[in-house]
Amino acid sequence: MERLKCTISYDGSGFAGFQVQPRQRTVQGMLEKALAKIHKGEAIRIQASGRTDTGVHAVGQVIHFDTPLTIPEHNWKQAINTLLPDDVHISHVEQVSDSFHARYSVKQKEYHYMVLNRDEPDVFRQNYALYFPKSLNIEAIQAACEYLEGTHDFTTFSSAKSTVKGSKVRTLYHASCRKKGNDIEFIFRGSGFLYNMVRIMVSALLDVGVGKRNPEDIPVLLAAKERGKLGKTISPNGLYLWEVSYHEQTEEKHFED
Amino acid sequence: MERLKCTISYDGSGFAGFQVQPRQRTVQGMLEKALAKIHKGEAIRIQASGRTDTGVHAVGQVIHFDTPLTIPEHNWKQAINTLLPDDVHISHVEQVSDSFHARYSVKQKEYHYMVLNRDEPDVFRQNYALYFPKSLNIEAIQAACEYLEGTHDFTTFSSAKSTVKGSKVRTLYHASCRKKGNDIEFIFRGSGFLYNMVRIMVSALLDVGVGKRNPEDIPVLLAAKERGKLGKTISPNGLYLWEVSYHEQTEEKHFED
Repeated sequence: MERLKCTISYDGSGFAGFQVQPRQRTVQGMLEKALAKIHKGEAIRIQASGRTDTGVHAVGQVIHFDTPLTIPEHNWKQAINTLLPDDVHISHVEQVSDSFHARYSVKQKEYHYMVLNRDEPDVFRQNYALYFPKSLNIEAIQAACEYLEGTHDFTTFSSAKSTVKGSKVRTLYHASCRKKGNDIEFIFRGSGFLYNMVRIMVSALLDVGVGKRNPEDIPVLLAAKERGKLGKTISPNGLYLWEVSYHEQTEEKHFED
Repeated sequence: MERLKCTISYDGSGFAGFQVQPRQRTVQGMLEKALAKIHKGEAIRIQASGRTDTGVHAVGQVIHFDTPLTIPEHNWKQAINTLLPDDVHISHVEQVSDSFHARYSVKQKEYHYMVLNRDEPDVFRQNYALYFPKSLNIEAIQAACEYLEGTHDFTTFSSAKSTVKGSKVRTLYHASCRKKGNDIEFIFRGSGFLYNMVRIMVSALLDVGVGKRNPEDIPVLLAAKERGKLGKTISPNGLYLWEVSYHEQTEEKHFED
């Protein structure tokens, strides 16, 4: 058996999320269907770095699977892509050792969240960015981001429906926002993320941006450890699973300003 | 009765084209449904500058309609947008005289066609650009564009299914292509366009770009007046109705390089 690691991108708009569900179009479903074809009908189970919800996109999701086939590494990518629909694409395939696991070996994950911050909505980006016309104080958001960085109990910033047992302590190595024209791009890099954590953090940061909260409220919210302190989880459409890393980063990753 | 002119944008991905059809989701259908609500159920017919096919987008489509209501001009935009789905949006409304007609008063139309010219497809742009991985000679395409400019019989470049009776002579004031990173953007501005004309022109220009044809073939193709001389009509997904003009342009519009 060989273990293959694949980096994949998908447009979440047309999927009922990543995970297989009966009678639903899911990313995992499409991938496993393609792999079953390659394996002459044999069911091949894939493991992902984690699920993504309905409407959430991925630029660099990672999966692995084991195969009895001995196809040369460089032929796998085209073999699978040919069998996938246009909204899922494998960008990289590599053979890995049996000790690699797409979920359990994760060291860091990076998520981006895109906000369209202008008066008029953009019909072409309704599925790809949150339309938010109110004026935003970027400096205040950036100050709030700095309070989120570090190792904290993120209970306040995770879904009350979360099924995670045990610790809700996570380390956020990087949290920032940058303005690019009318876009505001949020970047989060961390050891792991709780359910809905990015969407709840962005919701709180937008509250800071419009002046409903102060950056200094963030440490208070973290200390409260109570999901009810914050407003609703915002749209999945602006959220992208950007990168999954399996190596310890020896120095801080550089983010352009 | 007042006549209102509206400029609208739409993402063509989710529509069975512009024109109303029974049991199909169309742009005209959505607009007329919204207007009927505003008019307490009374059917309001809209007139557009022209139809667009399934999958074709619009940045600046223009429509007009007549209304017995006396809503202030600046309230119309929000009133209609509130009733429209996220993939259609009215960007401008103005009152016009009865002599204005969205279709018959058109002086010039501008279409853009987007091509993604790189090795890897982009899952986020499958509906918004033609994925074309082959390497392209932009200078040759530009030379071919210049042969298309001017007043010609465009029979070779229009659908054989075209129902247009009479002359297929049209004037193309501007035809160009420009490279922006991995994108190739085609721009066409003309007095009018025949059915599928932009998609057939881009198809021929891509043939020139890959070396299957020479720029000098364009005048020969025009002179042949035979649709069969050219390959298939390419995807509607890269096509945008960009702007509709109702005034004679006194000097040539400036296109950035």
